[in-house]
Amino acid sequence: MGERAQLVTRETLYEGPFRMLVDEIDDGHHRYKRAWVQHPGAVVLIPLLGDDVLLVRQFRHPTGQEILELPAGTLEPGEDPRETAIRELQEECGFKPGRLTEILTGYAAPGYSSEVYHFFRAEDLVASRLPGDVDEDISVERVPLREAVAMAKAGRMGDVKTALGLLLL
Amino acid sequence: MGERAQLVTRETLYEGPFRMLVDEIDDGHHRYKRAWVQHPGAVVLIPLLGDDVLLVRQFRHPTGQEILELPAGTLEPGEDPRETAIRELQEECGFKPGRLTEILTGYAAPGYSSEVYHFFRAEDLVASRLPGDVDEDISVERVPLREAVAMAKAGRMGDVKTALGLLLL
Repeated sequence: MGERAQLVTRETLYEGPFRMLVDEIDDGHHRYKRAWVQHPGAVVLIPLLGDDVLLVRQFRHPTGQEILELPAGTLEPGEDPRETAIRELQEECGFKPGRLTEILTGYAAPGYSSEVYHFFRAEDLVASRLPGDVDEDISVERVPLREAVAMAKAGRMGDVKTALGLLLL
Repeated sequence: MGERAQLVTRETLYEGPFRMLVDEIDDGHHRYKRAWVQHPGAVVLIPLLGDDVLLVRQFRHPTGQEILELPAGTLEPGEDPRETAIRELQEECGFKPGRLTEILTGYAAPGYSSEVYHFFRAEDLVASRLPGDVDEDISVERVPLREAVAMAKAGRMGDVKTALGLLLL
């Protein structure tokens, strides 16, 4: 809400890893509703292994298809983004980073979500696996970095975080 | 859903410019729920005026703050992304593009939203205003392109679509 705006009512529609809310807002001139996702934030990893980057291929229910993405994951309650990054890389790719550098944070879709993406470059990877979620079916692909960046520039990466993460290198 | 997965039930929690749904899915091994946003898609404009880019500053309810972003807007039912781009640029910035080039499409947050961003470079701008939404309070800022790109690289742009759009130039 802006400086003048006031929250009139809030309804919780869904509660899970994130919340779906509908707020009624009065900005002094108008009264309107905003449906939005209250999200704890997520990490996006750019894992570098030699001249390659690790990407994950997974079916994404909202899109109805498999997408090739940078590894990513949602913050658990009370978790620091660095911890999430280390955990997710082990769960999704089976590696632990020796060096982890936060390179950017930014909102994913600020019109209807509070989700912040924390982008980390992950280097000096050593094999270390943690079990993942039962409802995730992820395969890891090792792609030459130069090729992945060219795909991102050509618009052939399926999502915005992956294109941005690769272009930031 | 993957190839083996089946939709068991779907509940609609909210219906507006987008829908909030909860699906129950059976993938043959597990049964689980997925809450997600069914979204018609959006355009993201990179409006170039001389050596400057036009950005918009607006309060974004989910983030609790004002953000400086590339102009953007949601597709209306049946609308082609090019039409949305032309309409939104007039509504948010008061310009009509003489030249409009689609440079990338990508999912915004494929884990819980079907929203696709269509990125357009907008050039040869001529003054032309359409009235905007009553619940939007937007101010336009003209920023030297070089400065905006440097801000994006330094992680000082508030959202991912804006950082990506600027880095694509």
